[in-house]
Amino acid sequence: MLSTYFAEHKERFLAELFELLRIPSVSADSKFKPDMLRAAEFIKEKLATAGLDNAEIHETEGHPVVYAEKLIDDTLPTVLVYGHYDVQPADPYELWNTPPFEPTIRNERIYARGSCDDKGQFYMHVKALEAMLATGNLPCNVKVMIEGEEETGSEHLGKFVTDNREKLKCDVILISDTSIIANDVPSIEAGLRGLSYVEVQVVGPNRDLHSGVYGGAVQNPLNVLCQMIASLHDDKGRITIPGFYDKVDELSADERAALAEAPFDEEEYKRDLGLNAVFGEEGYSATERASIRPTLDLNGIWGGYTGEGAKTVLPSKAQAKISMRLVPNQDPDEITELFTQHFKSIAPPTVTVTVTPHHGGQPYVTPTDSVEFEAARRAFREAWGKDAIPTRGGGSIPIVALFEKELGVKSILMGFGLDIDALHSPNESYGLFNFYKGIETIPYFYKHYAELKQTVVDA
Amino acid sequence: MLSTYFAEHKERFLAELFELLRIPSVSADSKFKPDMLRAAEFIKEKLATAGLDNAEIHETEGHPVVYAEKLIDDTLPTVLVYGHYDVQPADPYELWNTPPFEPTIRNERIYARGSCDDKGQFYMHVKALEAMLATGNLPCNVKVMIEGEEETGSEHLGKFVTDNREKLKCDVILISDTSIIANDVPSIEAGLRGLSYVEVQVVGPNRDLHSGVYGGAVQNPLNVLCQMIASLHDDKGRITIPGFYDKVDELSADERAALAEAPFDEEEYKRDLGLNAVFGEEGYSATERASIRPTLDLNGIWGGYTGEGAKTVLPSKAQAKISMRLVPNQDPDEITELFTQHFKSIAPPTVTVTVTPHHGGQPYVTPTDSVEFEAARRAFREAWGKDAIPTRGGGSIPIVALFEKELGVKSILMGFGLDIDALHSPNESYGLFNFYKGIETIPYFYKHYAELKQTVVDA
Repeated sequence: MLSTYFAEHKERFLAELFELLRIPSVSADSKFKPDMLRAAEFIKEKLATAGLDNAEIHETEGHPVVYAEKLIDDTLPTVLVYGHYDVQPADPYELWNTPPFEPTIRNERIYARGSCDDKGQFYMHVKALEAMLATGNLPCNVKVMIEGEEETGSEHLGKFVTDNREKLKCDVILISDTSIIANDVPSIEAGLRGLSYVEVQVVGPNRDLHSGVYGGAVQNPLNVLCQMIASLHDDKGRITIPGFYDKVDELSADERAALAEAPFDEEEYKRDLGLNAVFGEEGYSATERASIRPTLDLNGIWGGYTGEGAKTVLPSKAQAKISMRLVPNQDPDEITELFTQHFKSIAPPTVTVTVTPHHGGQPYVTPTDSVEFEAARRAFREAWGKDAIPTRGGGSIPIVALFEKELGVKSILMGFGLDIDALHSPNESYGLFNFYKGIETIPYFYKHYAELKQTVVDA
Repeated sequence: MLSTYFAEHKERFLAELFELLRIPSVSADSKFKPDMLRAAEFIKEKLATAGLDNAEIHETEGHPVVYAEKLIDDTLPTVLVYGHYDVQPADPYELWNTPPFEPTIRNERIYARGSCDDKGQFYMHVKALEAMLATGNLPCNVKVMIEGEEETGSEHLGKFVTDNREKLKCDVILISDTSIIANDVPSIEAGLRGLSYVEVQVVGPNRDLHSGVYGGAVQNPLNVLCQMIASLHDDKGRITIPGFYDKVDELSADERAALAEAPFDEEEYKRDLGLNAVFGEEGYSATERASIRPTLDLNGIWGGYTGEGAKTVLPSKAQAKISMRLVPNQDPDEITELFTQHFKSIAPPTVTVTVTPHHGGQPYVTPTDSVEFEAARRAFREAWGKDAIPTRGGGSIPIVALFEKELGVKSILMGFGLDIDALHSPNESYGLFNFYKGIETIPYFYKHYAELKQTVVDA
C-alpha cells in the first residue's frame, strides 16, 4: 500500500532532499559549475534507484538535463514530469537566519535555498514514483526531465526539446513549481499570462541643451515621453492601443465565478503592499486584473540628469522599458507590432521614436474542462478532502508555452508551495506538510488521469 | 583723446590679456589654487597701474575677490563693474586645436580658455578705465569687483556683498559677460529668467513587485508619474498649474516688437538642433518662448530597471527633477509652493508624493526705458553707429538678482561676445574686433550715464 510505504520511508525521503539541498547548484554563477554536475548526478542516481529506466545525463551547451523513464505499455498514456535542479543565487548571505545550503527545520518548515523552488517540489515526484513503482501502483508510462537552467531562462531547453521530440513524446506534462492558495485552500494554476517587452527611445534635439537658453522653444523629449506613455491608458485603466483587446479571451460568467472562489482580502492586500488604494481596469476585481486581464506597465524609465542636486539640462533623449502582460489569445509578436505602430503614430513631429522589442512569451491556459485538469482536480479531492480552486497566474512560465508548441500537449501546474515560501529571497522555505502532502497527492493524479484517459478511449 | 590712447596702446592691451589668459585660473579644481592667486594678484596690479585706488585682494572662504575704486566726487553717480577671473576647466584638452592656456590668434580671433568668459570681457573694462583716467575722461565714480567663483556658482559672493554693502554702494552695475546677436547686430540683454527647481518622488507599493504577479492590480508609480507630468501642460503648450501665470509680466506690443527685431531664422535653428519641428506655447514666437515666457521642463527622470535587457519589475517608486524657468514678476518661492500644492493635489490615491525644492533664482529685468538702459543704448549708437536691440535671455545669472536685492540697483548686461565663442567648450575664442570694440564702447556708457543722471538731477 502506498500510504504504508510513505509512512515507512518518510524520514529517508526528507534526508535525501536535505542531501540535494546541500549542493549549491546555482546556475547563474559559473563557479558552481561542479555543483551543478554533482546535483545532476545525484538526481540521475535517485531516479535509477526509484526504479526508472534509462536514467541519464544529457549535455547541453549550458547545464545538463537529467532524464529517466518507465515505459510500461505503449497503449497507455504517458505523463512527462518536468522540474529544475538549479536554484537562485543565495545572496545576500547575511540576511539568512541559517546558512542557505545547510537545510534546517524550524516551525515545521525546511529552510534552504531551493527548498521549494524547485528541489523540494520536483523531488516529491521522484519519491512518489519510487513509491508507485515499489508498490505496483504506476498506472501509465512516465518520463522525467529535470533541467538545470530554469533560473537563468531555460536558454538551452528549447533546443533539447526540439532535438528530442520523439523521446519526450507524451500526453500531458506534470509540473510542481507553483503554489496553492493556502494549506486549507488548495488550488491549481490553470493559466499564465504572456509577455511583450519593448524598449522605447524618444529623441528630440541632437544634443543636450541648456534648459534656460532653449527651454520653452524646444519640446523636451522627457516631457514628450511622459505624455506618450500617459496616453496609453484611459481614465478607466484600459489600454488605448487600437486592437489591443481584439483577441482577448473573455471568460464566461461561470469561469469568473470559479476564479472568484479564491479568497481575496483587499484590506490585507493593501496592508501587505503598503497601499492606500488599489486601481486597475474598471469592471474587474483585483484578482482578475492581475491574471485574466492584460496590462501595460513601465518597468523602467530614464533620461536627463539623475544625480544629486540640480542640473538644468534639456536632454536630447528619453528612454523607457515597457512590458505588456498578455492573456489568451493575444499573440506577443502581434501585440508588439500593434504597440510599435501606435507608439510611433502618437509621437509629435518634434521627436523621433525607436521601439526595440525584447523577449516575449505566449500566454497559456489549460482548459478547466479538460481531462488532465479534471485528473488534477480529482487528485486534490481525494488527497485533501476538498476541491481545488482553479486560479490564473499573472506571471509567465515560458516553458509551458514551449512544451505546447513543440510537443503539442498541455501542462498541469500542480504546485504545492505557499506565498510565504520566499522564493528567490533570503530564508526560502517549504512546509514539511506541503512536501509530504505533495508526495501523497501525485499518485492520485496518475490514477485519475489513467482512468479518465481510459474512459475517453472506451467512450 | 581716447581714440589716440587706444591706438597707441592696443598692442600692449592685448599682450596683457594674453598674460592673464596664460594663468590657468580654474576655480573648480583645487590644484589650480596657486594660479587663482596669481590671477588675482595680476588683476590687482593692473587695476592699480590703471590709476584706480585701494586695489586690494579680499579673502573669502573660497577664492578671493579683487577690488579697486576711483572715487572722484561723491555728488556724482557711481558705476560698479563686475566680472570674474575664474574660468571653466579646459577638459578635454585633446579637443583643443591649440593649448587652452597658450592664447593663439587665428582668423582675427583669440583662442584660449577664458578668452571671452570672462577674462577677455572684464579686461576691456580695466583698459577702458585706464584710458579714461589717463586722458581725463572719467565722468563719475567707479568701483571694480572681480570675483573668482562665478563658474562654481559664486558660492561666497553673497556673503562678500552683504558684508561690504557700504563699500559696494553704487548707482548701477556694469557687466560684460553676455553676447551680442552679431557684429553687425549689436544688442543688450535687458532681462533674464528665474528658476524654480524641484525634485519629485512618487511612491506606490512598499517594495518592488513582480510585474506579472501584481501588474494590473497595483497602479505603477512610473506610469502615475508620467500621467501627472503629462497633465502639467495642456495641448497648447501652456502650464496647467493654477495661478502659475498670475504674476507673469505680459509685455506690451511695443516691447514685443522691439524684441522681434532680433533676427531669427527658424529653419537654421531647426537645422542646428536637428529638429523636425519646434513646439511651444501657442501665441508666442520661438524667441519669446525661450525668453519672456515661463517654462516647465523635466531635467531628469528615473525609476525601475534601467540596465541592459529586460527585467519585469513593477517598481516601488519613481523620481524626476523638474525646473520651471520664471519671468518677471514670478517669485521662485511662490511658484515652488504652487507647484507643490498642485502636484500633490493631482496624485491618485494609490501613491504618496514628495516634492523637495532645490535652489531657485529670481527673474530679472532692466526696464528698457530706464536711465541706465538708455545710457547703454546711446553708448552703442555712438560706438557702433547703430541701435542695439534689447534682448531677453532665457537662462539665469543669479548674481544680478543678488545685486538688486543686496545693493538695490539694476545691472546693465553689456556683453560683447558672440554665439560662436564656444564658452565652456574646447576652442573657446573671442574676436579681436569684439575686444577692441568693447574697450571703445565702455567709455561712452560712462559719458552718457553721467549726463543722463545729471539731467535727472537737474530736472
